[in-house]
Amino acid sequence: MPLPQFPRHPFDTVGDDKLREECGVFGVTGVADAANFIALGLHALQHRGQEAGGIVTHDPEHGFSSARRFGLVRDNFTSQKIMETLPGAIGIGHVRYSTAGSKGATQIRDVQPFFGEFAMGGAAIAHNGNIVNADELRRELIERGSIFQSSSDSECIIHLMARSLQRNIPERMKDALRRVEGAFSVVAMTRTKLIGVRDPLGVRPLVLGRIGEGWALSSETCALDIIGAEFVREVEPGEMVVISPEHGVESFKPFEARRPRFCIFEHVYFSRPDSILGGRSVYETRRQIGVELAREAPVEADLVCPVPDSGTPAAIGYSQESGIPYAMGIIRNQYMGRTFIEPSEQIRNMGVRLKLNVNRALIRGKRVILVDDSVVRGTTSRKIKEMILDAGAAEVHFRIASPPTAWPCFYGVDTPEREKLLAATMTEDEMRRHLGVASLKFISLDGLYRAVGVAEGRDPKAPRYCDACFSGNYPVQPTDMMAKGFELAEPAE
Amino acid sequence: MPLPQFPRHPFDTVGDDKLREECGVFGVTGVADAANFIALGLHALQHRGQEAGGIVTHDPEHGFSSARRFGLVRDNFTSQKIMETLPGAIGIGHVRYSTAGSKGATQIRDVQPFFGEFAMGGAAIAHNGNIVNADELRRELIERGSIFQSSSDSECIIHLMARSLQRNIPERMKDALRRVEGAFSVVAMTRTKLIGVRDPLGVRPLVLGRIGEGWALSSETCALDIIGAEFVREVEPGEMVVISPEHGVESFKPFEARRPRFCIFEHVYFSRPDSILGGRSVYETRRQIGVELAREAPVEADLVCPVPDSGTPAAIGYSQESGIPYAMGIIRNQYMGRTFIEPSEQIRNMGVRLKLNVNRALIRGKRVILVDDSVVRGTTSRKIKEMILDAGAAEVHFRIASPPTAWPCFYGVDTPEREKLLAATMTEDEMRRHLGVASLKFISLDGLYRAVGVAEGRDPKAPRYCDACFSGNYPVQPTDMMAKGFELAEPAE
Amino acid sequence: MPLPQFPRHPFDTVGDDKLREECGVFGVTGVADAANFIALGLHALQHRGQEAGGIVTHDPEHGFSSARRFGLVRDNFTSQKIMETLPGAIGIGHVRYSTAGSKGATQIRDVQPFFGEFAMGGAAIAHNGNIVNADELRRELIERGSIFQSSSDSECIIHLMARSLQRNIPERMKDALRRVEGAFSVVAMTRTKLIGVRDPLGVRPLVLGRIGEGWALSSETCALDIIGAEFVREVEPGEMVVISPEHGVESFKPFEARRPRFCIFEHVYFSRPDSILGGRSVYETRRQIGVELAREAPVEADLVCPVPDSGTPAAIGYSQESGIPYAMGIIRNQYMGRTFIEPSEQIRNMGVRLKLNVNRALIRGKRVILVDDSVVRGTTSRKIKEMILDAGAAEVHFRIASPPTAWPCFYGVDTPEREKLLAATMTEDEMRRHLGVASLKFISLDGLYRAVGVAEGRDPKAPRYCDACFSGNYPVQPTDMMAKGFELAEPAE
Amino acid sequence: MPLPQFPRHPFDTVGDDKLREECGVFGVTGVADAANFIALGLHALQHRGQEAGGIVTHDPEHGFSSARRFGLVRDNFTSQKIMETLPGAIGIGHVRYSTAGSKGATQIRDVQPFFGEFAMGGAAIAHNGNIVNADELRRELIERGSIFQSSSDSECIIHLMARSLQRNIPERMKDALRRVEGAFSVVAMTRTKLIGVRDPLGVRPLVLGRIGEGWALSSETCALDIIGAEFVREVEPGEMVVISPEHGVESFKPFEARRPRFCIFEHVYFSRPDSILGGRSVYETRRQIGVELAREAPVEADLVCPVPDSGTPAAIGYSQESGIPYAMGIIRNQYMGRTFIEPSEQIRNMGVRLKLNVNRALIRGKRVILVDDSVVRGTTSRKIKEMILDAGAAEVHFRIASPPTAWPCFYGVDTPEREKLLAATMTEDEMRRHLGVASLKFISLDGLYRAVGVAEGRDPKAPRYCDACFSGNYPVQPTDMMAKGFELAEPAE
Repeated sequence: MPLPQFPRHPFDTVGDDKLREECGVFGVTGVADAANFIALGLHALQHRGQEAGGIVTHDPEHGFSSARRFGLVRDNFTSQKIMETLPGAIGIGHVRYSTAGSKGATQIRDVQPFFGEFAMGGAAIAHNGNIVNADELRRELIERGSIFQSSSDSECIIHLMARSLQRNIPERMKDALRRVEGAFSVVAMTRTKLIGVRDPLGVRPLVLGRIGEGWALSSETCALDIIGAEFVREVEPGEMVVISPEHGVESFKPFEARRPRFCIFEHVYFSRPDSILGGRSVYETRRQIGVELAREAPVEADLVCPVPDSGTPAAIGYSQESGIPYAMGIIRNQYMGRTFIEPSEQIRNMGVRLKLNVNRALIRGKRVILVDDSVVRGTTSRKIKEMILDAGAAEVHFRIASPPTAWPCFYGVDTPEREKLLAATMTEDEMRRHLGVASLKFISLDGLYRAVGVAEGRDPKAPRYCDACFSGNYPVQPTDMMAKGFELAEPAE
Repeated sequence: MPLPQFPRHPFDTVGDDKLREECGVFGVTGVADAANFIALGLHALQHRGQEAGGIVTHDPEHGFSSARRFGLVRDNFTSQKIMETLPGAIGIGHVRYSTAGSKGATQIRDVQPFFGEFAMGGAAIAHNGNIVNADELRRELIERGSIFQSSSDSECIIHLMARSLQRNIPERMKDALRRVEGAFSVVAMTRTKLIGVRDPLGVRPLVLGRIGEGWALSSETCALDIIGAEFVREVEPGEMVVISPEHGVESFKPFEARRPRFCIFEHVYFSRPDSILGGRSVYETRRQIGVELAREAPVEADLVCPVPDSGTPAAIGYSQESGIPYAMGIIRNQYMGRTFIEPSEQIRNMGVRLKLNVNRALIRGKRVILVDDSVVRGTTSRKIKEMILDAGAAEVHFRIASPPTAWPCFYGVDTPEREKLLAATMTEDEMRRHLGVASLKFISLDGLYRAVGVAEGRDPKAPRYCDACFSGNYPVQPTDMMAKGFELAEPAE
Repeated sequence: MPLPQFPRHPFDTVGDDKLREECGVFGVTGVADAANFIALGLHALQHRGQEAGGIVTHDPEHGFSSARRFGLVRDNFTSQKIMETLPGAIGIGHVRYSTAGSKGATQIRDVQPFFGEFAMGGAAIAHNGNIVNADELRRELIERGSIFQSSSDSECIIHLMARSLQRNIPERMKDALRRVEGAFSVVAMTRTKLIGVRDPLGVRPLVLGRIGEGWALSSETCALDIIGAEFVREVEPGEMVVISPEHGVESFKPFEARRPRFCIFEHVYFSRPDSILGGRSVYETRRQIGVELAREAPVEADLVCPVPDSGTPAAIGYSQESGIPYAMGIIRNQYMGRTFIEPSEQIRNMGVRLKLNVNRALIRGKRVILVDDSVVRGTTSRKIKEMILDAGAAEVHFRIASPPTAWPCFYGVDTPEREKLLAATMTEDEMRRHLGVASLKFISLDGLYRAVGVAEGRDPKAPRYCDACFSGNYPVQPTDMMAKGFELAEPAE
Repeated sequence: MPLPQFPRHPFDTVGDDKLREECGVFGVTGVADAANFIALGLHALQHRGQEAGGIVTHDPEHGFSSARRFGLVRDNFTSQKIMETLPGAIGIGHVRYSTAGSKGATQIRDVQPFFGEFAMGGAAIAHNGNIVNADELRRELIERGSIFQSSSDSECIIHLMARSLQRNIPERMKDALRRVEGAFSVVAMTRTKLIGVRDPLGVRPLVLGRIGEGWALSSETCALDIIGAEFVREVEPGEMVVISPEHGVESFKPFEARRPRFCIFEHVYFSRPDSILGGRSVYETRRQIGVELAREAPVEADLVCPVPDSGTPAAIGYSQESGIPYAMGIIRNQYMGRTFIEPSEQIRNMGVRLKLNVNRALIRGKRVILVDDSVVRGTTSRKIKEMILDAGAAEVHFRIASPPTAWPCFYGVDTPEREKLLAATMTEDEMRRHLGVASLKFISLDGLYRAVGVAEGRDPKAPRYCDACFSGNYPVQPTDMMAKGFELAEPAE
């Protein structure tokens, strides 16, 4: 009789069936040893990108210094040896998940911040978001004699700056960003200035903080907390702040004004629960999504269990609103981060077991409501359902803290191709049957708007958020993707 | 004006103020590529030891193969290249935190399993626990000409086996273990037999599982789940199981019978919440501790918040019993595992911030009950309280899911010297003032016994568990430590 | 009594008191797996640069592939894993010692070949030599909007190409190289063409070889031997060869014609003794230098010993001409390559002992003639003399196979600043006293010309070689260095 | 037409067709930071073993410290970080090539020095040689309860010491070594004593040196030179020296006296040419072998060329005696050490080209005498001959500086099995035809004895050296090998 067999390799098999933020940015000025602060800040932003990270600093004696590494911040920017190579009181940093444009493996030259030497001095930039006309810009720049060193869309910005006719770096940056379409929250630096910019729609977050007499810019407030900085305000959509010792924080509005469209998925999943978005704890918003969901989609059951960790706040809210006890029915192995990179879709179907285990003695015989943040391909959801049923649950009900994800994001989030999104090809009931659960309910788009604080729900004529991944309503036309054949459901705004 | 300063290095500063399990053991026989199963099993037991791990396998063609590495299982036993060096259908593995006896840095030769070549063939053993007369045994063995290769107490077992006059390995193992005093759950192997033994008191856990026609032994049931094995039963205190293809599972009772004394702290903290101990989910026991604690020590407040992650189940129980809403007031950075090794006590006082962040917008102005599993040195508790108050909480109340930890453990747990244990030198009220909180309450020893299922509480004449860390009542005399001057409060049993 | 002390660290102390070639280049087309041939070729050229190496290949399926690493070829381009990432039948490679322009540590982005994407496709180039107007060019290019990614002078070529108005790559390369002043032997490639160019003076070597139906370009013939290629001819000074499947080898002369000035030090030291320069084995030329030296500077002695390994051929020649027995009086430790990078001048004064040991039993009581290739700072020569005398030699006579090195090289060789060259500040007799030897003689410049085959010696009006390091007669004005204050002894030609 | 093909990987293909010394040993006492001296000493002995190295030191504060690493000394024992872990004024070290007994890959636990903790304190030993009854001893020791940690024959010594009834370490060591048969030069240490022993035949070398008030023991004198120690004398065959601060150097003769039989191959190849053996430079002895060879086997030719580097001294001697000019006809690539480990015999037939290149312009049309130190399998010799003929040589004559190697060594040298030795299966003329050369001559055994200073040649009744590899006359019966079926030509002495 053959022996029990095992997959070829136990750890080849881990996958996350999640959308992923592509980047986090951080900058600081007016502090001793800026690189240490930046390392801390990037560590706090690690959930926005785990593939690689980089830091650039400047001091008058050594000029610009930089270090760029693959892997986690804590594994790279921890040795005294590396930190000593990054002297200075001003600097910026970047963590990234993957790059627009690159087909194969990322190379170290794709890791930001990017640096450029201009006639009037050097500048470094770090970019969160995605430039939707990068292919077009790159073609034009190469035609004129620019040499690209990376496959990153963000490098266009530095080449556009190099060719600007303006005489100082902030002006050159304005020139460059006016040519760029898409989503961008940029943190940049010169020898003496720290600069932050958000695109006119304000798709990606960017906040300003105060530390002693110095200043910090960060994708999220949680990175201000870790360095002990005070949260001052968000950089506004379409705003450029230029921070210098002489003039403090100066604010500019270089772009034509537009109605803001902040990414609603930052509330649902990307941002850390202890960050503050729109004046409220992200955790609290997510708990409120659970409350809305319990109202919209009640069901009789014994336990409300989160899919850890991202489903936790909504599960707490669901439990509180429904009165059904909250319980940890699924336990996460804390020695398996979000950091595994999966090679193939086939493998995505395995391996949840390495990360999650069912609390068998608890679940047995129970009717279980599982609360998750989203369903992307549905592969993980299916696996989890199977684990729960294998453990002897009587019924499984899925409640999802976001509407069906039916459209790809072109603004700085890694989404599968449209045909791989479960909700792009199935109705809710088809999905329920595909997942094999007793019931499956997503929060409505209106319910989600209510949970983030828009009491009247979504105004389809003028939605307050970018919700393209749910609605197919794209606020900026994805130029390069359309050149490759992507078809919009409706014209972009 | 001087710039804001930063600690010398941001990541030097992380510490855990916890007791730590020193080991996890795992073995399997009758499966294809046993090493893969063992890697999975050890990954599931990683919380029991993160410093190093090892695997030994055997197959008829290559004989015994072994690999021992520092670091996490997922970082070592993941490459196809390594797994190919570990062929065979039988094998054992070990994860460890640190070693009894070694003062300085652990060396790779201290990493288990240990292997010995005897006249009748080889054997490998992996040990969870601590031998309290190891110094004495080692002295005696060296006197007789044994050469020790490690500083580990566990190596005594293999030398005792080498000198036994018995003619087969299980008999030699009985001989050896009869000389050993202390706590031990041992998994061992010969070319064809998988062996499991628990000391007469059954201080450390060990369970038996079935996988196809094969068998597994594991410290905890969560490691059976991950390989898809079925939990059969616990190996009993004082039992030796010998598993072979010819005779299946044979059970022996080589030791003089004693009243069992399972470690009660396994329920409180060491074991994984999804493991089953004494027929009940560990999670459920911990939730019940929270319920007991809410009854024993109620207080008026706005939120019940766990200190993540170990305080979570008790906080849920406390919230459910008290009716005060449960909330995630402290968020854990998931990119910082339990794995950082801190160099000095001074540094332990810092760096909690790297791991934990307060959900400021949620906490502001609230009266907060913080639920934690234990207080050891109190350094982390103090830091957390400060973070919560800095964030604007109105009041902080600590509720601790275990009695005051006032005595060191000599049975396989890494405890600070007695004088560093907060509860060894202070009363509860002194601790409250030291921590600077509005109230501080520990669960009573009776309450803890009730939560683990002993309805009548603790019987001081014949306690059912080893609770020496709380009571100073040591079931086995710590011979070596007493030779070094340690004084018992009362004679050991 | 204090114990014998030791320098802080035994291996910090190794230095070579030699001039160093800065680069070797190699290219091949029309072979299966070009990268393997290039790895071999670079291994054979390793003496021209040990700091780093790189390979670029192209095949229609994968486009351009590249790998650039610090360290020796054998340590980097040896794993199947790396070689598989470099597919294609055409490719180029580069080994380097250090970079012009970079003050601090070389970074991986400074490692060649450099690659540029142009409107009509990509090209990669590898450069041996030095561009003497690189600073000027770089300034101009940055002014116009080019972004430099390295600190290497060679990167100018690729940016000049990017801005050329020509429509194909060979023509753009001609445009670019016409703006470049200095010494250059360049190997370049497009998707289908292998290109080789030498500057009009032909300062650095470049040879053409045939392998099957394919072609190779190499700095030296020894790299043709290792891949089994046949030496066809040298690429001529001022010639560009363009090799393609359709047209085979096409020859162009893009530059204004000048009288060639090949580097005479290639004969003395840089090139490998088994390479062929000017139709003759380099070994044979060096042996002939020894013969000339014995005629110019005879002395009575017992043994002729080379300073290994570079002094060996001249020592053989000296022995043969003088009749004094040749002997290995100094033994080289073969486990210490030329690869140690020394941190400071102070340390250069130590450590010869790690590399060389005197054959004490042989040397004792003997009058010894030591033959070395050159004296640069004199630090090593002094150490060697001391070792020989410590071992009991009766007399030490130095004979040097090159004239006094009194001027820095600006054409691709790493020379100390002028004031550190012993011969720049001392007469021959001062040097003799400084080195503390019985006699010291350098070959005359005429003698050297005779040895390389110019029977009539050097024509001071129209010297056939570049001998600037001996004569101060610079064939190309070192523009950038003069801008930094370097003063010529006589106007450059 | 197919493209020129290349072997699967260019650097898989390197092999040395040489016998290899298996170990070098070094010890020092009475110096500051002994580890630095040992690192230097081992670096000088690197030719005796390149696979791995280890150092053990002792100081009163830290006790024994050790570091054992794979690879070259210069790559391991160079970092300040490692050297700081090896404090103390006394220590020993070891370099090794491979291990007797281990079939597969060496593991780090096989790397010496070995350490044992005895009742009266610890001791470490390093062993050069081979124990011919190790299997027998190991079996007996395991039977009695010893646990071996390595597969090395040398570990027997430490276990024998552990079981000795003597009360101090030097006495226990005498006890142990009296049970050991074979060749051994041992360097050992206790907390305060440095100990050196040679077996009664004195097969392997061991010398004593003086440094300041301290002492050193080394396999060869070249390692005394590098640390600046003065060569005092050889440790005598059968002598044990015990060096302590109180008694200085004490000499013992613990073994039954026998006629010494020093390994004659140390003169031919193993020892470094700058070491002193028997009062004469090894280089000088090898040159004398060339002189004898020219007398025994003259031939008309144009050039005498060494096979680098080991044939060089004999080639010089041959040239001086014959009057035929000495020339470097083959050039060695200095970036390819002796360190490559080849996987298969098939591969040994390739790859010489990576290491050696013919000086084509020199060799063309010439009659060449090639002088090499030995012929083992003959694979390299054949390749070299082909390279020389390919380069256009008119004739090739081989002259070998040792007699035909027809028997394996069991005393610490890595030899192929007998049937792979060319001289074990062919006559001289068959070998000549197999190698395809115009003539092939080995020095006679008598000639070799004359060259090492025994004017009357070899006395077959009482040879002064161990020459078993040439004669089959084994001075110590190879017990273990005979148990495995090896047949002696004549009874061992």
